[in-house]
Amino acid sequence: MSSLHKSSDHLTPKQVYTSEDLKGISDIDSLPGESPYLRGPYPNMYAGRPWTLRQYAGFSTAKDSNIFFKKTLQNGGQGLSVAFDLATHRGYDSDHPRVQGDVGRAGVAIDSVEDMKELFKGIPLEEVSVSMTMNGAVLPILAAYLVTAEEQGANIEKLKGTIQNDILKEFMVRNTYIYPPQPSMRIVKDILVFCSKSMPFFNPISISGYHMQEAGAYTALELAYTLKDGEEYIKTALSAGLNIDEFAPRLSFFFGTSMNFYQEIAKLRAARKIWHKLVNQFNPKNKKSTILKTHCQTSGWSLTAQDPYNNIIRTTIEAMAAVFGGTQSLHTNALDEAVALPSEFSARIARNTQLILQEETGLTDVADPWGGSYMMERLTEDLIQQTEQLMHEIDQEGGMAVAIEKGIPKQKIEEAALRKQAKLDSGEDTLIGVNKYKLDQEDKLETLEVDNSQVLKTQAFKLKALKKQRNNNEVKSKLILLEEAAADENQNLLNICIQAIKARATIGEVSQALENKFGRYEAEVGISKGVYKASFDKEWTESKALTDFKDLMKDSPKLLLAKLGQDGHDRGYKTIAGALSDLGFEVELAPLFSTPLEIAQLAIDKKVNMVGISTLVAAHKSLIPELLEHLKDFGGTILPVFVGGVMPESDVQKLKDLGVVSLYGPGTPIPDIAEDILKQYLKHRD
Amino acid sequence: MSSLHKSSDHLTPKQVYTSEDLKGISDIDSLPGESPYLRGPYPNMYAGRPWTLRQYAGFSTAKDSNIFFKKTLQNGGQGLSVAFDLATHRGYDSDHPRVQGDVGRAGVAIDSVEDMKELFKGIPLEEVSVSMTMNGAVLPILAAYLVTAEEQGANIEKLKGTIQNDILKEFMVRNTYIYPPQPSMRIVKDILVFCSKSMPFFNPISISGYHMQEAGAYTALELAYTLKDGEEYIKTALSAGLNIDEFAPRLSFFFGTSMNFYQEIAKLRAARKIWHKLVNQFNPKNKKSTILKTHCQTSGWSLTAQDPYNNIIRTTIEAMAAVFGGTQSLHTNALDEAVALPSEFSARIARNTQLILQEETGLTDVADPWGGSYMMERLTEDLIQQTEQLMHEIDQEGGMAVAIEKGIPKQKIEEAALRKQAKLDSGEDTLIGVNKYKLDQEDKLETLEVDNSQVLKTQAFKLKALKKQRNNNEVKSKLILLEEAAADENQNLLNICIQAIKARATIGEVSQALENKFGRYEAEVGISKGVYKASFDKEWTESKALTDFKDLMKDSPKLLLAKLGQDGHDRGYKTIAGALSDLGFEVELAPLFSTPLEIAQLAIDKKVNMVGISTLVAAHKSLIPELLEHLKDFGGTILPVFVGGVMPESDVQKLKDLGVVSLYGPGTPIPDIAEDILKQYLKHRD
Repeated sequence: MSSLHKSSDHLTPKQVYTSEDLKGISDIDSLPGESPYLRGPYPNMYAGRPWTLRQYAGFSTAKDSNIFFKKTLQNGGQGLSVAFDLATHRGYDSDHPRVQGDVGRAGVAIDSVEDMKELFKGIPLEEVSVSMTMNGAVLPILAAYLVTAEEQGANIEKLKGTIQNDILKEFMVRNTYIYPPQPSMRIVKDILVFCSKSMPFFNPISISGYHMQEAGAYTALELAYTLKDGEEYIKTALSAGLNIDEFAPRLSFFFGTSMNFYQEIAKLRAARKIWHKLVNQFNPKNKKSTILKTHCQTSGWSLTAQDPYNNIIRTTIEAMAAVFGGTQSLHTNALDEAVALPSEFSARIARNTQLILQEETGLTDVADPWGGSYMMERLTEDLIQQTEQLMHEIDQEGGMAVAIEKGIPKQKIEEAALRKQAKLDSGEDTLIGVNKYKLDQEDKLETLEVDNSQVLKTQAFKLKALKKQRNNNEVKSKLILLEEAAADENQNLLNICIQAIKARATIGEVSQALENKFGRYEAEVGISKGVYKASFDKEWTESKALTDFKDLMKDSPKLLLAKLGQDGHDRGYKTIAGALSDLGFEVELAPLFSTPLEIAQLAIDKKVNMVGISTLVAAHKSLIPELLEHLKDFGGTILPVFVGGVMPESDVQKLKDLGVVSLYGPGTPIPDIAEDILKQYLKHRD
Repeated sequence: MSSLHKSSDHLTPKQVYTSEDLKGISDIDSLPGESPYLRGPYPNMYAGRPWTLRQYAGFSTAKDSNIFFKKTLQNGGQGLSVAFDLATHRGYDSDHPRVQGDVGRAGVAIDSVEDMKELFKGIPLEEVSVSMTMNGAVLPILAAYLVTAEEQGANIEKLKGTIQNDILKEFMVRNTYIYPPQPSMRIVKDILVFCSKSMPFFNPISISGYHMQEAGAYTALELAYTLKDGEEYIKTALSAGLNIDEFAPRLSFFFGTSMNFYQEIAKLRAARKIWHKLVNQFNPKNKKSTILKTHCQTSGWSLTAQDPYNNIIRTTIEAMAAVFGGTQSLHTNALDEAVALPSEFSARIARNTQLILQEETGLTDVADPWGGSYMMERLTEDLIQQTEQLMHEIDQEGGMAVAIEKGIPKQKIEEAALRKQAKLDSGEDTLIGVNKYKLDQEDKLETLEVDNSQVLKTQAFKLKALKKQRNNNEVKSKLILLEEAAADENQNLLNICIQAIKARATIGEVSQALENKFGRYEAEVGISKGVYKASFDKEWTESKALTDFKDLMKDSPKLLLAKLGQDGHDRGYKTIAGALSDLGFEVELAPLFSTPLEIAQLAIDKKVNMVGISTLVAAHKSLIPELLEHLKDFGGTILPVFVGGVMPESDVQKLKDLGVVSLYGPGTPIPDIAEDILKQYLKHRD
C-alpha cells in the first residue's frame, strides 16, 4: 500500500503501445550511423566491433593496481580505467596532514610521475586505451600521464583514452573540485586546446551524467544537465579560438545506467538525437562532430549491502540496458561495491557479465534492436521533450554556468533524491532484500579490506626520496612559471604543468602553485526542506511524523551532520539532513572536507546534542576514532555520535566498541533512523 | 578462428533492420489480448498481474520438500512445482531392486498417497497452484494428488495447477515413458477427459518443448515439434468425444529459454500466432481455445560447472527473454544446477532473479514492449516460416505420432545436438569460463549433497507399514479392476486409479497393474554417424581426426557407452557416441535403464575394450561402484571405465580411488576426451 503522491520525475509508461504511438515522431526510419544517430553512432554497431569492456579500478598502490591492470588485460579486459584516491583527486600529496584518512582508499595514490610510471609499468600506452577519472587535479595527473608515455618512448599523438575533466558536474555533485568555477573552466579550456592540437585519438573530456544519477537525478534531469554541460564546454573551446570540428568529434560522454530499464535505453537514444541537434547550432562541417559517443556504468546506488549476490542480477539487467541503448564502452559494478572495493572474485564476475553478454547471447548481432518498437520510439520521443524542457529552463536562468553558480541544478538533484528516498521509505519502490523479502540473517561476504597505514608510509617514503633526488631548484623555477601562467590566459597550463612534472614536481606541489593564484573553492551547504515530507500523503505525515515523534520532539534536539575527510559524495548526508529536518530535528550541516578536529570544534561551537557522520569510502576507519578522541578532549564526556553509510561488518563492531551509539547501514528507512536517534538522545540526556 | 561450416539451424539475423523489414507481415498492428495473440494472451499483460514465479524443486523426501515449499511461499514464491525422483517417474516403488541408485535423487520419492499427503501437509491445495512434472507414472501420481486434496477437504473442482502429462516428447527426449506409445496416449486421453469434466481450473497437460531444447533442438525445431505434439493431443481429445472448447482453453505449454536472446523472445510471439491458426482449424467457438499460454524455464544446459556464479548472469538474461516473450509463469535455474540440486542459497538467488525483474526494473509496466521493433517483428515472422516448414515436413510423414514412431524427431534433435557440440569444440560458440577465459583454479562451491541411503530406508519402512495397515484384499480387487480397465477403452483409467490409490495401493503397484496389460516400452538406441565430422570443415577433420588419432586408431578400440539406472537424459551419451564414432572408435550403445550388472554382462558379451558411463543425476554415487565390482567378478581385472557428466568435485576423487581411469566434467571438448580415452586404452592394453 503506497502512501505517496505519484511522482512525476520519471515518465510513466502506458500499458500498451501501438503504431498509433509512432505518429509525429521524426527520424524513426533513420539508420544507425546516420543523422541524427538516434539508432546509434555506427552503421553496424556491435556486429562490427562490440563495446569496449572497461572496468574502473584502482587498488591502493600503483604497484598493486599495475598487477591488477595486467591481469585485466589478460582476462578479456579491453581497456583500463583508473580510480584515484580522494587525496589525489583533491590535489594533496599523500603526506599532507588533511588527507591521512583518505590516502589509498577508493583508488590509487599518485603523488608524482614516478607513481604514474609504476602504475603503467609494462603496459604499452601507445596500444592500450586508458581512461582516467580525474577532475580536480586534472592538470598534474594528465601531465604525469603524458610524461610517463613519453618516457616509455610512446608517441603522444598515438595515445588513446579519456580523461574525465568534467568540472562542471563536480560543482553539482561529487565535489572533487579544487578551484572556483572560473579558473576551473580555464583549466578545462587549456586541456581541450592542448589535446585538440596534439592528441587526436584522445578524448579530452568525458561529460558525465553518471554522478548526477548516483546523487539522485532522474533520467531527464541527468540527461538535460549533462548535455547542457557539454554545450558549455563547446562554448569554452570556441572562445579559445578552436574550430568546432577540431574538438567536437572527441567530446565523449559518460552516463549511469539504473534499474529503470526502458528509460535507460531510451536515454541513450534520446541523448544522441538531442546532442546532434545541439552541436548543429555551431555549424560543424564534419558530421562526426555531431555524434554523441558514450561510456556507461551500471548504477552503484542500486546495489545493496544486503544479500549482495542479488547485485549480480541487478548489474546484468543494467548492463543490458546500456548495451541496448548503444553504449561505446561499459563498466559493470562488482557485487560487493556497496560495501567495499571489488575483490578479485567480484571483479571477475563483473567482467564476465559483459563477456557473457558479448559472446554468449547474440545481443551484438543487431544494431539498435529496439528500433521501431512502438514503446521504445514513443518513450525516446517523450524523454526528448521532457529533457528539452529542462534544458530550456536552464537557458532561461542564463545558461548552465550561471545556473550552477546559483546552485539550481544541485538543488533540483537533491530534491529528486529526497523524493526517491521517500518512495523507498514508504515501500512504493521495492528493493529486494532491503525493504522486501529481507533475510533473517545475512550471509558472510568476504570483502577486500584496505589498510591504508602501509600505503601512507610507503608514499611518504617515496615522496621523501623523490625530493632528495630531484633538482629542487629546477622544480621551484617550474612551479613559479606555473604560478605566472595561472595569471596569464595566453599560456597553456597543461604545457607548463608537463615541464613541472617532468622536473619531478609532485601532484600536491603543482596543485598548490595553482591554488596560490586561484584559491581553493568552498561550497555553501544548504538543506532542502519540505521536499521529503511533501512526498508523502497527508495521512502518512500525520500518523508517522506527528504521532511517533510528536511527544519526543518537544525537546527539539539539535544535530550536527557531517562528512569527514576528502569524500565529497554528499547525497547521503544531504538526504538525511532534509528528511530529519522535515521530521522535526534542528539540523546543522558541516562543510565538506572537514577534519575530525574541525567537526569536533563545530559541534562544541554550535552546541549540538548529537553528531552524525555519513561515510562512504572507508575513511571512517581512522577518522571516526579521531573524532571521538577530540570530542572527549573538548567535552569531558563524549557527545553521542551516530554513523550512517557503507561499512563492512567488521568495522561496525569496532566503532561500537569505541563508543559510537548507533550505526545505520544503507537501506535503513529514515523514520527508523529518526526514532533511534531520538531514543539515543533521550538516553544520553538523562 | 572458426573451423566450422555456418550452421543453418538458427536463423541468422541481419545487422540492421528498418521499417522495410515489416512489409508483408500480418498482425503487427494487433493488440495484446487480441487475435492472433502475437503480442500476448492478455490485454495489459504484467501491468495487470506479473507472471507467476514458479520454482521447480523437490528434496529427497516428502517431509523436506514440504518444509521447502512452505518457505518458498513465505519468501515470495507464487506457486509450487514438484520434481519427482526418477524411480517415481518410471513407476517403481522405492523398494524395487532396479531403482536403488535413483530413489530420492533429483526429486522427491513418492510411493503412496501417504507420501503425497506429507508433501502438501499444511498447504491448502484449493488455494495454491501446484505444478507437477510427471509423465510416465502420471495416472497414480495425479490420482494421489486428487485423493490428497479430497482428504484435505478440498473441492476438486477448485484445484488449480498443471500436470505435465506430455508423453509424446518423452519418446523423443528424456525418456521417462513406461508403456508403449499407443497405451500411453490412451492414458493422456483419459486424463484430458477427466479434467475437462471435473477440474475446470487445472491444466491437464503441459505440452513441453523444454526438454527438446535441453536435448539439443534449435529454436524452430523445439517450436515445431511442440506445437505438433499439441495438435496430436487435440486430435486425441476430439477422438474421445470432447468438444474443442471443453479442453483447449486449458492446454498449457512449457518452453525452454536459452541464451539465444532475440530468438527466444520471437519464439513465444511466434508460438502464439501459429497455435492460434492451428487451433482455429478445429472451429472453436471460445476464443480462449486458441490462446497459447506457457510456462518457461531458463536453460539448464547453458549453465556451467565452471565458475558457477556466471550462471546467475546467464539465468538473468534468459529470464528476461522469457518475460519479454510474454510467459505466464517462470522457473529460473539456480547457479549450482549444473552440479547439484539447488542449495537454500542458490534457490534464493534464483527466486530473487524473478522478484527483482518484477519489482525493481519497470519491465512489467508495458505489454509486449518489443512490439513494432523492426528486428523483432521480422525475426518472429521468419521463425514462423521456418517452424511451419518443419511442421509441414511432419505432416508429410503422416503426423507427429507416426513421425515419432519412425524416430524422425529424435534423430533430428540428436543431429542438432552434435552440430552444437561441434560448435563448442571448435570454439565457434563461446562459453565463458569453459572454452574461453578459463580459471586456473576453480573456487569451491558448497553444494547440496544427497545421501539416498537414509531415504531408501525410510521409504522401505513406510511401504512396509502401509502394506500392513491397509486392507490388502481391497487393494488387490482395485488393482484387478485397473487391469480390466486397461483392456477396456470405455473406462476412464484415472477414475479407477483414484479408487486404487484411495485404498492405499502404491504407485508401483498401480504402474505394475497397467504394465501387466500394456507392457513396458523399450526404445531402440541408435548412433547418429557422420553429423559431428561433417560440421567441421575439411581441413579441421583432416588435421584433427586424422593426424592426432590416425596412428593410434589402427587398433580400432571398441567402447561400450552406457547410462545407469532410471536416468533417461540421453543427450550426453548419444552426442559422445556420435562424435567418438566419427573420430574412429567402434562404439556400442547400451540400452537405457540398465542396471550395473546388466552393463557389466553386456561389456563382456560384446567384448569391448573399455566402458564409458554418462551420468547426470548423481546415481553414479552408488551405481558406478557396483559396476566396477561386477566387472571385476566377471573379468578378474577391471575393464577400464571412464565417466563423463555432472559430478560434484567430492565424488571425482572417490571414483578415481575406486579405479575409474578418467572423469570428464561438462564442457570437456570431445577431441580431448577421445585422445585421453586412447591413451588410457593403450596404457591398459600393454
